[in-house]
Amino acid sequence: MSIKVTSKEMVQELLDNYDNFLFDCDGVIWLDTTLLPKVLETLDMLRALGKRLIFVTNNSTKTRDEFVAKFASFGLKINREDVFGSSYASAIFAKDILKLPQDQKIWIVGDKGLEKEFKEAGYKTIGGTKMPELDEPLDLKNKDDPIYHLDPQVGAAVVGMDTKINYHRLAVTLQYLLKPNVVYIATNIDSTYPANGMVLPGEGTLVQAAAYCSQKKPYSCGKPSKSLIDVIVKTHGIDKNRSIMIGDNLNTDMKFGLDNGLETMLVMTGIGSEEALNALEETKQPTYFADKLGDLYELMESR
Amino acid sequence: MSIKVTSKEMVQELLDNYDNFLFDCDGVIWLDTTLLPKVLETLDMLRALGKRLIFVTNNSTKTRDEFVAKFASFGLKINREDVFGSSYASAIFAKDILKLPQDQKIWIVGDKGLEKEFKEAGYKTIGGTKMPELDEPLDLKNKDDPIYHLDPQVGAAVVGMDTKINYHRLAVTLQYLLKPNVVYIATNIDSTYPANGMVLPGEGTLVQAAAYCSQKKPYSCGKPSKSLIDVIVKTHGIDKNRSIMIGDNLNTDMKFGLDNGLETMLVMTGIGSEEALNALEETKQPTYFADKLGDLYELMESR
Repeated sequence: MSIKVTSKEMVQELLDNYDNFLFDCDGVIWLDTTLLPKVLETLDMLRALGKRLIFVTNNSTKTRDEFVAKFASFGLKINREDVFGSSYASAIFAKDILKLPQDQKIWIVGDKGLEKEFKEAGYKTIGGTKMPELDEPLDLKNKDDPIYHLDPQVGAAVVGMDTKINYHRLAVTLQYLLKPNVVYIATNIDSTYPANGMVLPGEGTLVQAAAYCSQKKPYSCGKPSKSLIDVIVKTHGIDKNRSIMIGDNLNTDMKFGLDNGLETMLVMTGIGSEEALNALEETKQPTYFADKLGDLYELMESR
Repeated sequence: MSIKVTSKEMVQELLDNYDNFLFDCDGVIWLDTTLLPKVLETLDMLRALGKRLIFVTNNSTKTRDEFVAKFASFGLKINREDVFGSSYASAIFAKDILKLPQDQKIWIVGDKGLEKEFKEAGYKTIGGTKMPELDEPLDLKNKDDPIYHLDPQVGAAVVGMDTKINYHRLAVTLQYLLKPNVVYIATNIDSTYPANGMVLPGEGTLVQAAAYCSQKKPYSCGKPSKSLIDVIVKTHGIDKNRSIMIGDNLNTDMKFGLDNGLETMLVMTGIGSEEALNALEETKQPTYFADKLGDLYELMESR
């Protein structure tokens, strides 16, 4: 049964028990373009206590620099090393975990952010935003089409958010995935994401399409996948037993913590709710929950 | 253990035991644009014996009339009532099995063939080839976009082969599928299809993408799904115990027969092989196999 954090003593216990605080961003730190209450104060308090703050987001369209800029727009100074977007995590996973040789190229289904992170990790990318001919319908009579000119140096196909996804891109991606030596990496497997009061198809929708036709299973580098915690541990050498994941999403954030041996805390400022929490069987519930992240600061300041 | 059909006596037994012969087309009747040997003679022989011949194909881009025309190009006269393409089967499934009221509209992801079959079944379709604006990238700032103007009369979303699939079409399809009253129909769940010596993403790739983001499970109307045999039985009132499915594909044709109580016979003129057959556990093997469909005629003619 999840425990609600309601007292200074409970916050103190959290502070004593954990050195590393991992946060989801949207729904925890901010909501879309609004900073959530007392987040600034909470993060300052944690920093003053020497805690390591790590920000983990499945958004695959932004680079770390772009995330740092978004934090800065709210007055939050964050080191890029402490931000793990799923595009960055994918690139580091390829380099440090899979140890994909740097002379191998990356076939991209995704946006500029994904390309930049792989480039920064030392890889050359193809596909992605660099092949506008893929925006046209697939014409099998066109012998110049990329589908007939696969690059033998491609060692991995990476699928992230790509609003230019179409049959042509799927068909060429399939040809790469069918090669036994080409590794399949997914930035994350989110089925949808919220936008303009709707939900739109998420990265996982594209990932599943490519997985279904190729029958190749991807390494997913976003929450809730293990690959992501491997990347974070490899980068920062954190002790998972002294780490807590704070998020608003039961399926991604809390599952990420629970599946990977991190302590977990749900906040109710995003898509999570106490109702959804209580509907889960006990072993799948996070250890703690709170109305908002800012409660940690407010409770510590209370008498 | 599958039995190879090698004698006149064995063919005679098949002829005695079955009244309804269901055939896959590509790899059984023809291979791409070539009629396979002794097919004409075999079908004539079966007809002369009063057998019912039914042709079952997962191809969702053609109407029954187009299939009849393809048969005619090989000199085979076939009644359109005896051809079950997966687009036709989807329309009949909606009308006769789901009993979807005819004043409800059908949201289409697919080509003209799919639209025509639903139109012929009495439904009005939207989407599909009728909304060229969906070929453009999704622009959430455009308040005229179909994503903001969902048609409340839509009662089903149907996904078949659509080489114009893109993020925009997926996103609008998702909005329809998220409505509790909208039924999800898939023409078939083939992961790929062969073309130009390659394999390309099949209907199932699009179907899975829409299923993943919407978390809605489709009724699939192609082989190997039960919906298809329901449609055939509803149309022709055949006795499944007196019916045999002949095909070249273990995963679709033979599974379709095995899962739905039809006798099964594999032929080796398409993608099936004796090696693949023997690799299957015994309960998943077809009862009979032959080198080609034309063997039925050749063996009967032998002394």
